[in-house]
Amino acid sequence: MDVNINSARLSAELESLATFSSVPAPAVTRVVFSEEDLRARAYVKRLCLEAGLSIREDSVGNTFARWTGSDPQLPAVATGSHIDAIPHAGRYDGTVGVLGGLEAIRALHDSGFRPRRSIELVLFTAEEPTRFGIGCLGSRILCGSLDGAADEALRDSQGQRLREWRTAAGYRGQLSTARLDWGHYAAFLELHIEQGRLLEQEGVPLGLVTAIAAPASLRIELEGDGGHAGALLMPDRHDAFLAASEIALALEAAVKATGAIDTVGTTGVCEVFPCAINSVPSRVKLEVDVRDIDEARRDGVLAALSTACERVARQRGIRVRTQLLNSDPPAHCSPELLAALASACDQRWIAHRRMVSRAYHDSLFMARIAPVAMLFIPCRNGVSHRPDEYASPEAIATGVAVLAGGLSALADTI
Amino acid sequence: MDVNINSARLSAELESLATFSSVPAPAVTRVVFSEEDLRARAYVKRLCLEAGLSIREDSVGNTFARWTGSDPQLPAVATGSHIDAIPHAGRYDGTVGVLGGLEAIRALHDSGFRPRRSIELVLFTAEEPTRFGIGCLGSRILCGSLDGAADEALRDSQGQRLREWRTAAGYRGQLSTARLDWGHYAAFLELHIEQGRLLEQEGVPLGLVTAIAAPASLRIELEGDGGHAGALLMPDRHDAFLAASEIALALEAAVKATGAIDTVGTTGVCEVFPCAINSVPSRVKLEVDVRDIDEARRDGVLAALSTACERVARQRGIRVRTQLLNSDPPAHCSPELLAALASACDQRWIAHRRMVSRAYHDSLFMARIAPVAMLFIPCRNGVSHRPDEYASPEAIATGVAVLAGGLSALADTI
Repeated sequence: MDVNINSARLSAELESLATFSSVPAPAVTRVVFSEEDLRARAYVKRLCLEAGLSIREDSVGNTFARWTGSDPQLPAVATGSHIDAIPHAGRYDGTVGVLGGLEAIRALHDSGFRPRRSIELVLFTAEEPTRFGIGCLGSRILCGSLDGAADEALRDSQGQRLREWRTAAGYRGQLSTARLDWGHYAAFLELHIEQGRLLEQEGVPLGLVTAIAAPASLRIELEGDGGHAGALLMPDRHDAFLAASEIALALEAAVKATGAIDTVGTTGVCEVFPCAINSVPSRVKLEVDVRDIDEARRDGVLAALSTACERVARQRGIRVRTQLLNSDPPAHCSPELLAALASACDQRWIAHRRMVSRAYHDSLFMARIAPVAMLFIPCRNGVSHRPDEYASPEAIATGVAVLAGGLSALADTI
Repeated sequence: MDVNINSARLSAELESLATFSSVPAPAVTRVVFSEEDLRARAYVKRLCLEAGLSIREDSVGNTFARWTGSDPQLPAVATGSHIDAIPHAGRYDGTVGVLGGLEAIRALHDSGFRPRRSIELVLFTAEEPTRFGIGCLGSRILCGSLDGAADEALRDSQGQRLREWRTAAGYRGQLSTARLDWGHYAAFLELHIEQGRLLEQEGVPLGLVTAIAAPASLRIELEGDGGHAGALLMPDRHDAFLAASEIALALEAAVKATGAIDTVGTTGVCEVFPCAINSVPSRVKLEVDVRDIDEARRDGVLAALSTACERVARQRGIRVRTQLLNSDPPAHCSPELLAALASACDQRWIAHRRMVSRAYHDSLFMARIAPVAMLFIPCRNGVSHRPDEYASPEAIATGVAVLAGGLSALADTI
């Protein structure tokens, strides 16, 4: 079967999608349920309808666009990703999996392929943690990893609830109705940019992901005593920002101490209060992200971080409150799916390598209800979550062609 | 002469002034030229008019309320302070010097005193650096330490110019017209809360300030490389926040290394970009404040900080840009004015001690155009720049009584 990817159309659609942003190009900011996110969703749904797909949306806004197979009772084969973007991000993270998935479906259709199983494109709500502080919100709810209590418990920084946000966006009903069980899908495939440099450095156009690293994230709130920067003498200080500085550096040291290249730890958020040049910081909020493909090693870093927090708090006379935002086990991809993708590569003479994903993705949660596999394509300099994030049209087309091959093999012909 | 301070009236006025705030009580936020600041100025001007004073305002909003003496050609005696407040501050910093100064004038008037020299109450614009990043804006311009270029050069965080802010607030004309020369005032006295614990710890109700510490402030901008918190491996990182953490800790170490209790250094501002939990920080802005009564020792700390910035930048592959926001010499108070204040204390059997001011005040700049002296009253636990800042009505009344004594001695009776 000869599948032709319309790379020009896909590039133009990725470019159009990037215009739904609250900041000027080339940066993209598209926070879930923002005006930009809702307009971007409408754009993607229109493309799906134009491609002849039928659309369903669940109570948290996960969106399913279905190409009905000849045997619609069989579990479908699905693919997809997300379109939300963190502040000042780029245009490829997530979107390549959504619009690329759509392009794979269109290319298969145009080639004359008719699937036995239905093929579904899934757009997940809020893979990024920007609004509610937790990543993969849509896929967590879909797989039952978050229950209905999240509707009230998850709040944005102004205290507005998930329930308020999703209903304002038009997504109604109980959160629990979004749940899907094992057996609903025969397979889930996700195409994504690597967000690392391995493929580029080795000159390999495609990565087959065997495992997804286990992420954990924490919020650390420090409370010391503020005061006048001139008059409060050094021995009397309990400076929350200096405590935060020590904790961030202690995290870095603990991560490096594992000696493993796969361990990463980041203090991405630091908010200082009152944040005035002549005032000793009285409070600081840190948000920390630790990941590893080895869960025990990751938890060792978390333990070291906790010890550092206690030590710094004691030495500086600071109160520390630590809240574990999430701690997820790693996911392992299905050998059968990986074999199907490898075969799709081989048929097209596309070189590939097996690798792990250090970033997490909706596949981490889809793995709880279906066999999953991920496909990585190289991105320039490994850069992601930045305005200069870039994947070439050729790299994207290669990924879409292999995705189409995998979907057709798994969906089976009539 | 028997001067009766109306402590109840003064307390009520301080309480009223605190209601002009953009945040709920007990915190006070009153940024220069904000709606709250303009309403607070109107309130103070109304009180001055009710007390029979005549009002003049200069091009930057410094406000002068004059009790004309019997010999109006003689240089006047002045007192005053500021009413702007940093975010989430308290209600006594600056305001005690303004409303207390007014109360001193009213009490002198009610006692039957009639001055030979005019007595002026001065309300300085923007002693706090909140809006424009530089403290003592009004008194700097008044004494000629900042020239007309500041009108365009000084901008808020959104890039809006001093010129736009002051003209929108109704203060027009060239900045240079605000300048006053040596000889304009015979003396300047400033009453202020201590913002430290010395008076409280020693049980002394009044401090006579002999010198004001030399403040310097810097902005440090760090630029590294951002990226995905999961995918960007530790050896490839150039994390601007970890660099900022090291710099803040290096400043603390350099300050402590002087071994002098009078050296203080603070990193009060830290803004992280993009400030997302799953993104490696690419840029950080720090603002740093260093003070000492010994200028050379302070400059030694600045040099050590500069060395630390270079070292951290080199080690972490980060670009650092340092901008000196201000660096002022210390001021020494006039022995003659201190003697007049000491005599006013003695006449009222009020114990006092001589001390230095580690916080800086408009007096630091008024010292360039007139003999100055400052009076400190204790504040609870030495706390300032915080909502729980507190000075008792008795402490304030003591300060106002001595201020009135000093003003009357310096203004001379008819």
